[in-house]
Amino acid sequence: MRRNDTLLDLFLELQILDRVPRSGYVLRGVHDPESVTEHSWHVLFLVWALGTRIEGIDLSRAVEIALVHDLSELRIGDLPQVASHYFPEGSKKLAELATMHDLLAPLPERALDLYREYQQGTTPEARLVKACDKLQLIVKVSVYESWGTGALSEFWENPNNFIDGGFTEVRELFEALRRRKAKRTDRPLDDHRR
Amino acid sequence: MRRNDTLLDLFLELQILDRVPRSGYVLRGVHDPESVTEHSWHVLFLVWALGTRIEGIDLSRAVEIALVHDLSELRIGDLPQVASHYFPEGSKKLAELATMHDLLAPLPERALDLYREYQQGTTPEARLVKACDKLQLIVKVSVYESWGTGALSEFWENPNNFIDGGFTEVRELFEALRRRKAKRTDRPLDDHRR
Amino acid sequence: MRRNDTLLDLFLELQILDRVPRSGYVLRGVHDPESVTEHSWHVLFLVWALGTRIEGIDLSRAVEIALVHDLSELRIGDLPQVASHYFPEGSKKLAELATMHDLLAPLPERALDLYREYQQGTTPEARLVKACDKLQLIVKVSVYESWGTGALSEFWENPNNFIDGGFTEVRELFEALRRRKAKRTDRPLDDHRR
Amino acid sequence: MRRNDTLLDLFLELQILDRVPRSGYVLRGVHDPESVTEHSWHVLFLVWALGTRIEGIDLSRAVEIALVHDLSELRIGDLPQVASHYFPEGSKKLAELATMHDLLAPLPERALDLYREYQQGTTPEARLVKACDKLQLIVKVSVYESWGTGALSEFWENPNNFIDGGFTEVRELFEALRRRKAKRTDRPLDDHRR
Amino acid sequence: MRRNDTLLDLFLELQILDRVPRSGYVLRGVHDPESVTEHSWHVLFLVWALGTRIEGIDLSRAVEIALVHDLSELRIGDLPQVASHYFPEGSKKLAELATMHDLLAPLPERALDLYREYQQGTTPEARLVKACDKLQLIVKVSVYESWGTGALSEFWENPNNFIDGGFTEVRELFEALRRRKAKRTDRPLDDHRR
Amino acid sequence: MRRNDTLLDLFLELQILDRVPRSGYVLRGVHDPESVTEHSWHVLFLVWALGTRIEGIDLSRAVEIALVHDLSELRIGDLPQVASHYFPEGSKKLAELATMHDLLAPLPERALDLYREYQQGTTPEARLVKACDKLQLIVKVSVYESWGTGALSEFWENPNNFIDGGFTEVRELFEALRRRKAKRTDRPLDDHRR
Repeated sequence: MRRNDTLLDLFLELQILDRVPRSGYVLRGVHDPESVTEHSWHVLFLVWALGTRIEGIDLSRAVEIALVHDLSELRIGDLPQVASHYFPEGSKKLAELATMHDLLAPLPERALDLYREYQQGTTPEARLVKACDKLQLIVKVSVYESWGTGALSEFWENPNNFIDGGFTEVRELFEALRRRKAKRTDRPLDDHRR
Repeated sequence: MRRNDTLLDLFLELQILDRVPRSGYVLRGVHDPESVTEHSWHVLFLVWALGTRIEGIDLSRAVEIALVHDLSELRIGDLPQVASHYFPEGSKKLAELATMHDLLAPLPERALDLYREYQQGTTPEARLVKACDKLQLIVKVSVYESWGTGALSEFWENPNNFIDGGFTEVRELFEALRRRKAKRTDRPLDDHRR
Repeated sequence: MRRNDTLLDLFLELQILDRVPRSGYVLRGVHDPESVTEHSWHVLFLVWALGTRIEGIDLSRAVEIALVHDLSELRIGDLPQVASHYFPEGSKKLAELATMHDLLAPLPERALDLYREYQQGTTPEARLVKACDKLQLIVKVSVYESWGTGALSEFWENPNNFIDGGFTEVRELFEALRRRKAKRTDRPLDDHRR
Repeated sequence: MRRNDTLLDLFLELQILDRVPRSGYVLRGVHDPESVTEHSWHVLFLVWALGTRIEGIDLSRAVEIALVHDLSELRIGDLPQVASHYFPEGSKKLAELATMHDLLAPLPERALDLYREYQQGTTPEARLVKACDKLQLIVKVSVYESWGTGALSEFWENPNNFIDGGFTEVRELFEALRRRKAKRTDRPLDDHRR
Repeated sequence: MRRNDTLLDLFLELQILDRVPRSGYVLRGVHDPESVTEHSWHVLFLVWALGTRIEGIDLSRAVEIALVHDLSELRIGDLPQVASHYFPEGSKKLAELATMHDLLAPLPERALDLYREYQQGTTPEARLVKACDKLQLIVKVSVYESWGTGALSEFWENPNNFIDGGFTEVRELFEALRRRKAKRTDRPLDDHRR
Repeated sequence: MRRNDTLLDLFLELQILDRVPRSGYVLRGVHDPESVTEHSWHVLFLVWALGTRIEGIDLSRAVEIALVHDLSELRIGDLPQVASHYFPEGSKKLAELATMHDLLAPLPERALDLYREYQQGTTPEARLVKACDKLQLIVKVSVYESWGTGALSEFWENPNNFIDGGFTEVRELFEALRRRKAKRTDRPLDDHRR
């Protein structure tokens, strides 16, 4: 299971991404937590819904970057955030790129380029995907908290989870989520819709 | 919970799609089956990976159709296939469109148009999404069978699950999957990778 | 899988009802939620325990109505409450009856009559089953809330969930549950037994 | 949590029966196995559907016996079959009856009498419930095997699981299930419906 | 499945201990609760980490007692605490010892002696294991509560769950856990780390 | 969450190890797979049961090495085997040791020394733990296969999973497991006990 030989091998292997849970939720006792596939779909939807409202975004490419942005977790797992303190600097990025190289072998080189663009994070499209990656986290945390999960306050306190890429549209959504959170804490057993 | 008022309401509600399992698997004892979100991501990936290889496909729009194609299941659930024999003809399609109207209210009208295009299924892009919707089913069934699930043979016998939309690229993948299935039946405890 | 040919086919198919979860709980993040089978058992128990205390109830027939009241969900699923706004009026009732017709084919016609009686809801026995169907919902919601589930307040606010069929015995239990709920909200981490 | 004080206490406690899995399945790796509530519902349905076909059965009382037959597992759990070799003879029966005494305290004495009738197992109604208790086991095992579970052959080999209470109707169903099992073993990945 | 014939039979059977959940959690709605295997590992770790700090403890033997202390649950299940009121006095202890006799047959007699020492509970090593058995319960309850589980207050109120075996090191940890619990109740949605 | 300040912080954090599933099983569709805690308990039991039979083993220290051997996975997760091809050589070992340093801070230095001994793998005790780490894998795979899991053949084909550390006792168990596997493949639906 190194380089995928055919497109079909890739399609079959990708199904396994549904079994890679987002580790941050697993380690905080969230039941039946989001898979990396589910996270990826929601990030893509956010990019698509917000990208049309932002001038100068190539929406089609932004969507493609979102599509590939987390695929390496299929082979190296979703490392907990704290793990980054223990691995040598840069080793995770190298591992991700090497994984993508083998994984996406049956696709045109352009697919890997989209991933490199994401890692570098300098184009507006890559920045938007990175911002939506965080926005989706806070959206999901809000839903889990409204469902009764108790130990997610660390997510709200870590400023790295609120990187908006400089996009007003994203920042405003973060602020709206913070306002709803403040209300929810007052009325802890209430639904997020109210 | 009728018409979504804001984009944020929509984003929050969409997270729930992760809790809508694909009913065909649930009713056949597949453990921890694919959610509609996961199915949607895989269909989108197939459309993206195959669409570049097919002349005359507007890849960007095909991806957008894939993105919205199953969202109504958030509110009406994923009805089992057999249910279609019991509901009055056309009632499900009406329910799906009415749901999408309320659900996607905060998005531009174009989003609903993409869904209508999918329902009508006449453009090449809509046909490709419909073909990939079936292709993803057979890909997943193959993976579940390799993992030990036993009661999925009905899927292989139903010709409706092999609609290729007239695309050679899809038909060849169906054929490759059938060949692997034939080998697997001979060696039932074997991995799909071999 | 249309009309069941034999009793054994019916018995085998009914086992699958255990895999149909109650959608209202699934969509609100309840973990490992009640199956339709479990709901049905509890409704039947309520009917049996309360029916003896109510004059003029044919207990034996009431129990039989409870036994069949939700079986159609085996084939058409447990539609979320919101779905009823999207399907054409009456289409769900038609689908349920058509399903029961195929499902219960190996049983005497009387079984289908019991279901028709439930749908019409005019006899005291059918009214009692309908009231216990709601009572069981609020009983279960109370237990889930005491276990830490957070997003169930909608159930308490919907008057349709408190239909008591005109039976004092049921109304008093609804009131007792509301009183316990009021205490629980004050002491949110407490057990429902206290 | 000894004697239930009120009917409502009983109704609330009974919801927990959904969290008591049938231990025989748990210990053989069946995923998401039947709860005692689900087992109880199916036994009751079998008694109801078969009882009308058997002369001399008081169907209404047979159904009531089925309703209460496994409730003690709420407090003492579903002991694995092998456990009966280790507990002193008769101690489990005593524990069951003592449990039922506390559990059913808010119900009329008749409820406990139904349970005593079940334990003694001498009336035709009690014998029918005991036979259907076993029949349901083999029906469920058949479904689990068709879904891919592998380690259930012990159930087929234990003659205690085929006690038919002297009822032809039950014996014939056991025989039909054995015939389907024999076919399934030849074609191990096949659906039980074929 | 009575006396294990070989070490390998024992090793295979022990894997099943992972499927025996701790009943106290199951019956209070804890999702994906600790298995008896997991409980056993944590008790052993506590014994090891605390035992070095306590004069006069034979650490090596204390660890061995912890290793075997709950193995009988493999065959007789983890009986709910309330069950002990219903079984005849002493019958559970007899069942446990008889189970261990069959289970550990391929090991030297010394293994069974370690279990007898645990049951008698008179040596300092046995007392330490019993104290850590309770300490682990309260540690785990604390974690589950921080994750949002609501119905665990009974554990805090039962003095039997705070038996410290006379060891200051254990008593101080119980007190520290009570202090954190008091803070958590004030701020119910907070993480246990703060 | 870097260096644990107190023993209690360590004990609380260790509970989370129950939520770290063994990734090799997750990615091959095993349902409810073994946690790292469960794996660790079984390895420890194997070391204890086999260590007494091997001359020259310091059993007490071997057990302690087994106790700590996988704890770093609490913070860096259980990386899939394939991940080791993508991370720079040695980076995982460094990450593991750095994690243990922070994690075990409240314990005497000796705890970290036990882990270093495991990583180096040169003492007989460390070699025995490493051999039992593999032996437990094949024992568990055997159980999962007997339960119906289908895609585990890769484990049998990878010679790295059969490292016996030079211990005859371990090698003979590997051979016995291979013989049972060969029988199971002939009779795929059979129980591992036969």
